[in-house]
Amino acid sequence: MTDLAINASRMHTRIEALAAIIRRDDGSCCRIALTDADRAGRDLVVQWMTDAGLRVEVDAMGNIFGTRDGRREGASVMTGSHIDTVATGGRYDGVYGVIAGLEALQVMAEAGRVTEHPLTLGIFTNEEGVRFQPDMMGSLVFAGGLALEEALAATDPDGVRVGDELQRIGYAGEARLGAPRAFVELHIEQGPVLHREGGVLGAVEDLQGISWTEVVIRGVSNHAGTTPMRLRHDAGYCAGRIAVFAHDLANRMGGSQVATVGSLKLVPNLVNVIPNTASLTVDLRNTDDDALRSAEAELAAFLSALADQEGVKIETRTLARTPPVLFDQHVLSIIEDVAKDLGQPIRRMTSGAGHDAQMMARIAPAAMIFVPSRDGISHNPREYTEPHFLDIGANALLRTLVRLAEAN
Amino acid sequence: MTDLAINASRMHTRIEALAAIIRRDDGSCCRIALTDADRAGRDLVVQWMTDAGLRVEVDAMGNIFGTRDGRREGASVMTGSHIDTVATGGRYDGVYGVIAGLEALQVMAEAGRVTEHPLTLGIFTNEEGVRFQPDMMGSLVFAGGLALEEALAATDPDGVRVGDELQRIGYAGEARLGAPRAFVELHIEQGPVLHREGGVLGAVEDLQGISWTEVVIRGVSNHAGTTPMRLRHDAGYCAGRIAVFAHDLANRMGGSQVATVGSLKLVPNLVNVIPNTASLTVDLRNTDDDALRSAEAELAAFLSALADQEGVKIETRTLARTPPVLFDQHVLSIIEDVAKDLGQPIRRMTSGAGHDAQMMARIAPAAMIFVPSRDGISHNPREYTEPHFLDIGANALLRTLVRLAEAN
Repeated sequence: MTDLAINASRMHTRIEALAAIIRRDDGSCCRIALTDADRAGRDLVVQWMTDAGLRVEVDAMGNIFGTRDGRREGASVMTGSHIDTVATGGRYDGVYGVIAGLEALQVMAEAGRVTEHPLTLGIFTNEEGVRFQPDMMGSLVFAGGLALEEALAATDPDGVRVGDELQRIGYAGEARLGAPRAFVELHIEQGPVLHREGGVLGAVEDLQGISWTEVVIRGVSNHAGTTPMRLRHDAGYCAGRIAVFAHDLANRMGGSQVATVGSLKLVPNLVNVIPNTASLTVDLRNTDDDALRSAEAELAAFLSALADQEGVKIETRTLARTPPVLFDQHVLSIIEDVAKDLGQPIRRMTSGAGHDAQMMARIAPAAMIFVPSRDGISHNPREYTEPHFLDIGANALLRTLVRLAEAN
Repeated sequence: MTDLAINASRMHTRIEALAAIIRRDDGSCCRIALTDADRAGRDLVVQWMTDAGLRVEVDAMGNIFGTRDGRREGASVMTGSHIDTVATGGRYDGVYGVIAGLEALQVMAEAGRVTEHPLTLGIFTNEEGVRFQPDMMGSLVFAGGLALEEALAATDPDGVRVGDELQRIGYAGEARLGAPRAFVELHIEQGPVLHREGGVLGAVEDLQGISWTEVVIRGVSNHAGTTPMRLRHDAGYCAGRIAVFAHDLANRMGGSQVATVGSLKLVPNLVNVIPNTASLTVDLRNTDDDALRSAEAELAAFLSALADQEGVKIETRTLARTPPVLFDQHVLSIIEDVAKDLGQPIRRMTSGAGHDAQMMARIAPAAMIFVPSRDGISHNPREYTEPHFLDIGANALLRTLVRLAEAN
């Protein structure tokens, strides 16, 4: 095993430096993909990668790669994540995995340590999907799951194209990298499990399948006082029924099933007018694709019965659908061995969030390492992980990368 | 009985002329109180009142009165309504009662018909309450239910004062009128009852009490994928529960009870984030004040239990609360007699909407006459009443006014 350790102080300083690029009054970070703030973040990280002696390349999707050569040529062992944020993001989501990966490669360079296989740090474009859809766009294109041309043609709500923004911020590159030997992503959990159990490390063995449905209910607007209950076609009441149904469905199914109505709008949204339209989203997730399909079918049946019962029209549209992902058992066992070497307990767990690693799992043996998020809070300025836990996670990543890069 | 009849063609022409002042692309009328459009509408109606030989006066609240003297001096028999609209109003709400009342007084003038008591047409300021609260402001001040100074100091969302807007549009008058002998308001139903039953005339005997509660739920935002159901404090789910509870409560209580969640907003309102805040309104109405109080108590108990159950904070604020109103039996019996004279069936009914007549009922024997609204639609460009029904309603008003003004 290596006795190398990451430079914790440098890692924390860099995380803070990135967070300071567009920090808003409430303490949140706002580096939405392909904005000027994203460019400023990219420029800073590329400078650090260059300082660390990495060979920096950018592909046509704006993904940034920094490689440290091994004794052998060929496919790299890759780590990486993203540095774009949601509109009110925390400081660790994505950034932690990138900066810890950089730290791992930099301490190896500083120690003159060369591995059998090359090591590459990847920074993937537009993981959050706030401004351009789909999310995890850069890793999805890298893994061949979305045509480059299609991704470049995606537009934001103002009609601005991904391809044009990449040109504008100077990150439309020409590098063409192949599939890595293996991929490991280090990330904060963004959920409460490790924090609640007092654990520090998680070996992520699977990732929930995600089903996003937009539901539009069209009823009839009418006066809230003069319209008897039996004559109503109340889109707002129907929206309430759906929110309650989705919640109860998840509780009834149990297991890893979760359900969220996160977005809901009424029209005309006035205190004394029965809403004629309600638009809402239903987010269903499960690690078992059969169970997820069954949740989707139950929702569809409920919507159909509700439409009949209330005399409203209900239309649905699938906004996103990804199957569950199983990570690689061999990579997971290495992560578990490394935890043992570090004297840290580790638990197998599921990721409820989407990550670049799920796209990379299409083309390489992949897995993830999680560290706790206090109270499970993420996508929020209160996102927080104890510095000591960040250090343990980064050292686990370093050792995992060395083990993978030395293997035959 | 009088054999006078209104001039239907003139009445329809005037309704259309008013509707043409700020008609929007979707056909809706937008004459929000004390705007330039409201002034244009007022100027037009005042011109018609003057042409009809009425003595026009304006009070400090901007209420406009046009009087035709009787043989005796003293209190008038008054009719009236309002000409302000909601942002996407129809052409009949308020306007119909004003123009029909003007028509009644004008045909009497043209026929040289003088009644025992004076007759007055009133046009009340800011009935809709869209821009300045409370609604029914002009009639409420006239009836002594709100201090003039308080009403003049009310501000719109931009901080503009009622008093300043009245000065600006030239309708801050000095007239001081006393309580009328009686008050009758003619209005479209704004509900579906007459239309569904195929009736033409309604004698409105009572008006629902109204209870508006703003509910703010504070939960915890978290990731929609990573947060197990049992660890959630989901403000959106709670909002759904409240919408369903209010609806079921009204159905369970029966009678005249109605309940509407018309306005609902989630924060941050994103597909994959559990909402931390939900703000919604609950509109409860009943003609029986005890029943309405019991509905309010049931809602409060439900909110308290829900807050405990889901680990959220729920705050409430009363946005409006008016008790039910009972109209005058003698005025109602005259309206019913007049309907018989006209050969029209008439039904007693409840108003689910607020009207100026409910304020006038505080200081005078009052009642209302309703005509049908097609499909019960109002506050909407599709608001529609058959012209023939408008004529019948206006003739019923004319005859009711004559009967009241000739009585000792």
